[in-house]
Amino acid sequence: MKEKVVLAFSGGLDTSYCAKYLSVEKNLEVYTAIANTGGFSQAELDAIEKKAYNLGAVKHVALDVTDTYYEKSIKYMVFGNVLRNNTYPISVSSERVFQAIAIIEYAKQIGAKYVAHGSTGAGNDQVRFDLTFQILAPEIGILTPTRDLELSRQEEIDYLKAHGVEADWKKMDYSINKGLWGTSIGGKETLKSNKTLPEEAYPSQLTETEEKEITLDYIAGELKGVNGEIFENPVNAIRALEAVASPYAVGRDMHIGDTIIGIKGRVGFEAAAPIIAIKAHQMLEKHTLTKWQQYWKEQLGNWYGMFLHEALYFEPVMRDIEKFLENSQQTVTGKVIVKLKPYNFVLVGVESDHDLMRSEFGEYGEKNSAWTADDVKGFTKVLSTSLKIHNSVNHSF
Amino acid sequence: MKEKVVLAFSGGLDTSYCAKYLSVEKNLEVYTAIANTGGFSQAELDAIEKKAYNLGAVKHVALDVTDTYYEKSIKYMVFGNVLRNNTYPISVSSERVFQAIAIIEYAKQIGAKYVAHGSTGAGNDQVRFDLTFQILAPEIGILTPTRDLELSRQEEIDYLKAHGVEADWKKMDYSINKGLWGTSIGGKETLKSNKTLPEEAYPSQLTETEEKEITLDYIAGELKGVNGEIFENPVNAIRALEAVASPYAVGRDMHIGDTIIGIKGRVGFEAAAPIIAIKAHQMLEKHTLTKWQQYWKEQLGNWYGMFLHEALYFEPVMRDIEKFLENSQQTVTGKVIVKLKPYNFVLVGVESDHDLMRSEFGEYGEKNSAWTADDVKGFTKVLSTSLKIHNSVNHSF
Amino acid sequence: MKEKVVLAFSGGLDTSYCAKYLSVEKNLEVYTAIANTGGFSQAELDAIEKKAYNLGAVKHVALDVTDTYYEKSIKYMVFGNVLRNNTYPISVSSERVFQAIAIIEYAKQIGAKYVAHGSTGAGNDQVRFDLTFQILAPEIGILTPTRDLELSRQEEIDYLKAHGVEADWKKMDYSINKGLWGTSIGGKETLKSNKTLPEEAYPSQLTETEEKEITLDYIAGELKGVNGEIFENPVNAIRALEAVASPYAVGRDMHIGDTIIGIKGRVGFEAAAPIIAIKAHQMLEKHTLTKWQQYWKEQLGNWYGMFLHEALYFEPVMRDIEKFLENSQQTVTGKVIVKLKPYNFVLVGVESDHDLMRSEFGEYGEKNSAWTADDVKGFTKVLSTSLKIHNSVNHSF
Amino acid sequence: MKEKVVLAFSGGLDTSYCAKYLSVEKNLEVYTAIANTGGFSQAELDAIEKKAYNLGAVKHVALDVTDTYYEKSIKYMVFGNVLRNNTYPISVSSERVFQAIAIIEYAKQIGAKYVAHGSTGAGNDQVRFDLTFQILAPEIGILTPTRDLELSRQEEIDYLKAHGVEADWKKMDYSINKGLWGTSIGGKETLKSNKTLPEEAYPSQLTETEEKEITLDYIAGELKGVNGEIFENPVNAIRALEAVASPYAVGRDMHIGDTIIGIKGRVGFEAAAPIIAIKAHQMLEKHTLTKWQQYWKEQLGNWYGMFLHEALYFEPVMRDIEKFLENSQQTVTGKVIVKLKPYNFVLVGVESDHDLMRSEFGEYGEKNSAWTADDVKGFTKVLSTSLKIHNSVNHSF
Repeated sequence: MKEKVVLAFSGGLDTSYCAKYLSVEKNLEVYTAIANTGGFSQAELDAIEKKAYNLGAVKHVALDVTDTYYEKSIKYMVFGNVLRNNTYPISVSSERVFQAIAIIEYAKQIGAKYVAHGSTGAGNDQVRFDLTFQILAPEIGILTPTRDLELSRQEEIDYLKAHGVEADWKKMDYSINKGLWGTSIGGKETLKSNKTLPEEAYPSQLTETEEKEITLDYIAGELKGVNGEIFENPVNAIRALEAVASPYAVGRDMHIGDTIIGIKGRVGFEAAAPIIAIKAHQMLEKHTLTKWQQYWKEQLGNWYGMFLHEALYFEPVMRDIEKFLENSQQTVTGKVIVKLKPYNFVLVGVESDHDLMRSEFGEYGEKNSAWTADDVKGFTKVLSTSLKIHNSVNHSF
Repeated sequence: MKEKVVLAFSGGLDTSYCAKYLSVEKNLEVYTAIANTGGFSQAELDAIEKKAYNLGAVKHVALDVTDTYYEKSIKYMVFGNVLRNNTYPISVSSERVFQAIAIIEYAKQIGAKYVAHGSTGAGNDQVRFDLTFQILAPEIGILTPTRDLELSRQEEIDYLKAHGVEADWKKMDYSINKGLWGTSIGGKETLKSNKTLPEEAYPSQLTETEEKEITLDYIAGELKGVNGEIFENPVNAIRALEAVASPYAVGRDMHIGDTIIGIKGRVGFEAAAPIIAIKAHQMLEKHTLTKWQQYWKEQLGNWYGMFLHEALYFEPVMRDIEKFLENSQQTVTGKVIVKLKPYNFVLVGVESDHDLMRSEFGEYGEKNSAWTADDVKGFTKVLSTSLKIHNSVNHSF
Repeated sequence: MKEKVVLAFSGGLDTSYCAKYLSVEKNLEVYTAIANTGGFSQAELDAIEKKAYNLGAVKHVALDVTDTYYEKSIKYMVFGNVLRNNTYPISVSSERVFQAIAIIEYAKQIGAKYVAHGSTGAGNDQVRFDLTFQILAPEIGILTPTRDLELSRQEEIDYLKAHGVEADWKKMDYSINKGLWGTSIGGKETLKSNKTLPEEAYPSQLTETEEKEITLDYIAGELKGVNGEIFENPVNAIRALEAVASPYAVGRDMHIGDTIIGIKGRVGFEAAAPIIAIKAHQMLEKHTLTKWQQYWKEQLGNWYGMFLHEALYFEPVMRDIEKFLENSQQTVTGKVIVKLKPYNFVLVGVESDHDLMRSEFGEYGEKNSAWTADDVKGFTKVLSTSLKIHNSVNHSF
Repeated sequence: MKEKVVLAFSGGLDTSYCAKYLSVEKNLEVYTAIANTGGFSQAELDAIEKKAYNLGAVKHVALDVTDTYYEKSIKYMVFGNVLRNNTYPISVSSERVFQAIAIIEYAKQIGAKYVAHGSTGAGNDQVRFDLTFQILAPEIGILTPTRDLELSRQEEIDYLKAHGVEADWKKMDYSINKGLWGTSIGGKETLKSNKTLPEEAYPSQLTETEEKEITLDYIAGELKGVNGEIFENPVNAIRALEAVASPYAVGRDMHIGDTIIGIKGRVGFEAAAPIIAIKAHQMLEKHTLTKWQQYWKEQLGNWYGMFLHEALYFEPVMRDIEKFLENSQQTVTGKVIVKLKPYNFVLVGVESDHDLMRSEFGEYGEKNSAWTADDVKGFTKVLSTSLKIHNSVNHSF
């Protein structure tokens, strides 16, 4: 009896080659699987399924993990205002881990001996897949034909043709990954240090030029409503925000960062909903959290984003950080007003019962009700003591 | 013989009142001084001097500390990419300290018994002045008539009129502070949580709508050139960048943060040159610094900005942080290309001999020359060990 | 009708003076209260009560908050391995906050108009009391006669004698504070930089010289058992450990640190149970937590200790940190073996089902089962890439 | 002509096997080299040289890098009070990097095609050697026969005997590494979680039982003198401290930590001079540095130790950290008094012109000269504002 392999299958050239290769050369029963984290429409999923069976897959499954992805990752990225290198909402990076988890769990479930993926040897995704597979199922072997054989596109096309698979494998100028938490765009300009993506490289184009004010509702740190409509499933709030904001061509930028494998890499992205959702959330926090909560959240959020980006989702410290972040969100409830403009947005303000800017205590620069001039004099006197002593001892200033 | 007081004098209603009050009620010889950190033109300085003598100042001086301010503060804020609360280039906050230093040094020099300022009891500036004065000259008394007496504007105006000083003390809608490192705008909307400043509140208006690409030259982390012109004094590079970028109405935002005295406050700002200079610098660092240099720079830069904002410039740890930041800048040399657009700018890319994105080692997602597929397999195997053990012991994932 | 004041009363000279002064000079109804955080025996409490009534207190109460103190503070200090400045288990500091809370809650309950304490103006305790009182009951006035009047001991004694209170107010060489979490000893040598406390200054003396091995049981991070006996109330586990370890004169040291009010201060302490409980806990964590859990716990634990020490227990970030710490403790269960010696103890080892040192994966320096030589070669190859590129670009090493 | 290999040679069984194997099986010209970081006596070095030539080495060199090791590593470990996991002065770990640098520089100098070391696949040293070699000379191949072949001791002995090399290769109970910065002891008990090393496993035994007070002189953070004798070369101060302290059997402990390769490992150590030098240095810093200098030094020092331990000495952030640490040491000058006791030492106190504990400003708990009771009231009033507002808004406390 043939042994089973589960192949993470996208329908592209690399994974199509893998499907045929694993079946023909390795004599394996190929189960293809696609883990959907919110980036695929039903039509796209159907087309992928068709391709899978066309390549001889014994069985193809589409595993929907969108809600899990939100609950276990996106939620905390908003809590932590996670922007890798101050810029990137780690759109693709965070998806991969949850796709890998779904794939390996499926492999365990059907008793597969191997699991396979089509990542090359030059990127982060190989590490995300390998690492997750090994941690969750060290007993299942990992097969990566495209990485190992280092074939050219033409060699892959020729192989498939020789085995009766013909398709329009045209090379796109840009490699595009679309997900619930943003779309990444790589290729051409992103391979150079001194260029940025041209307007036409972005899947979403500017189609709306009239300024518009929208409101976002956060409940305990989660985006739950857009323009007054509250969504039971926060995934739909994200989709609603994307729908209204994406025509303004906002949330575009370039991520430049260190890969897990040590080289520097660049990738463009558009992520209207993630960027606005995070920035609006952070503004609400400025009104509802203390200075030191924000201080520590920033440090822990950065670390959380780094580890998520670098495939270390399972490191137990991540769970500890999640508890910290979650606890901090109790008062992060309220409405944020955002003005959308072409290529741009302005955070107008917030309305919250937990707003700590309270005029009965004082107004910055205007009035002091909760303290007197003498209180401040005492305050600065005591605050100055240590530096006064330092200067007296060391004559340093 | 009368005792001397040095009054930090801006020519506004509060400090005008102080000048008269200290002379008439306290029987002091009033020396007025304005410390210019780059925000005043000669004409403005002349007008202030005239007001001072008109109020009966024994002597008025304008102390130019722009270069010192750059060398001791702005330089490090760029090195550290300092944006308070991820937003504010602490435009006014950082100036105050250097103004306070100049004032107190002048007071020591002329043997003044007192030093005075016109800050109210509701803001951060009172702490910046008091603290700096006390640390550098604990023997000199601090007088703050406006803070202590809590007079209304009308009471101040009446007092001045009664002493023969008439002027057009019209109340502006916004209180505006202009400096080399940005302009702050407070009042009306900034006192509410749910509003932002209207277009017309910004001193600089949009006057240029055609997109334009500019280049910025950094040498060891310092902005030294704009569009190919290298400036010996970096202060002039900042002014040149401001001149070219300000007509695009970029660098505007609202700072929402915790004051030193414990309340939340908001202030609008426009800071075209600071924001672009910092963001471009940070992009150059993404190409020229390692991941961990960036990690620690972010933490130390944040702290540096917090302490500078909160008047703790003299805390010795600030000098230690400066050394760290300075050492990290050795390779931060190169050109950054920036595209200016109305209300917006795009970081296009960098050109640097120290660029660590080097295609002969590998290209992200495209090719791997410095390592093989097997190397990555070994890498992920070793990387997975600790989590594999954790799962084996705790069945936690 | 007279107004009520609640006085935090210890029975010492300062608070005895306060009791009489508040009654006689301020014409207040004096309610005395002592908040016991585990440092007082019943006999001591009875003696204090007697003194209170002798001074004319309308009513005296002893508020036992030992269990609350453990649940809300000691527990987290163990989770976080909190030693201020790497040395001090903040024995007294942490107690004060919970004493202040109990006092002010009592004051609110009986409708007191004032609350009073006997702290001087030279220490941290005044801030701990004032701050806690103000935050929890801004409407209740704070009275501090001894701080305000700056009387000498003799003046206080004379005043009491004049009002018919005689007692043996002999000045001790050292001021001693005993609590569940350690005893602090201040005076004489601690006021100098170049001295330490002599043997006889420590309340506990060396009475046991024979080495002894003991075991400590931790369950989810909490010390629950000593020498195999499990205690339902962890407070009793701490007392049992203190009983067995204190005769070895261990856990003695000097804390040298920055006070809240800006000066440096020193205080000696003996804290056998706290020091052993923390060090043993930390050793168990080395076996059961990952590297990064320990890394972040150290940072958060330090901050937690600093804020607790400095009276900022109510800062909301403290609650967030507690959640992080608590979550990290799920696997910190097991037995720690400790050898007690005179003035010293040795952490022998641990036994835990969650021990991550598992020989089937590998033994440090001895055998590698979970990876091969080639895996490590791949690992170091990939790990070296970024630095190899740096050297190639910058010729820096 | 034969190609050259430089072998890091210790004279033990593993590297003796390598020497013969590389010459016989690989047909290489074997150059043996030992890099001395202060742990070897001349007699030991002579014995090693003799063994090398006996094994057929073409040439043997002893490279003395003790001073370099001090200047580039030990100095900063003292500045940073580096104790890995709060315990281990990373005695062996830090040496390895400097040994590896010396070896690879020698290999480059003589034009070797290969470099070899005898580390196994189960420890950290293999990574330290591989990584350093690859970064500094990616063009030189790395040979590791013992790691690759995984031979037993007996197989190595048999091979050597077959090639005419006979020696007393008796297996020690413990593997011992002695260096300037401490001695590590591994084996038997260290492979188990619940045991510690017995008294007799430590190379240094208790030979002195009478208490003795010594003084240590620090100049700008460096240990320069012991008992009043100032050493021009700080290496000699360390040796002098070791000579006086080692007979007290102090500085012993067990390091339990995460290895670079992901498993947990334990190692015992004795390090009298390092432990005392660091603890005394830290006490001097408590008197001479500000709270925030100590706060940041602790974080940066921990990171520095972690990276040094984990072979990442060349990461550029290490140079930035060194600048921070160095700058912080300007005032860390003075004398520390230490009392030596059997198995134990007590930090008595410090004498320093830079001592910030200055009684003219105030004495902790005793007197306040630089501020008044009212100043503290104002201070706590202002300090309480943010939490008062929080409670008013959220009723949280």
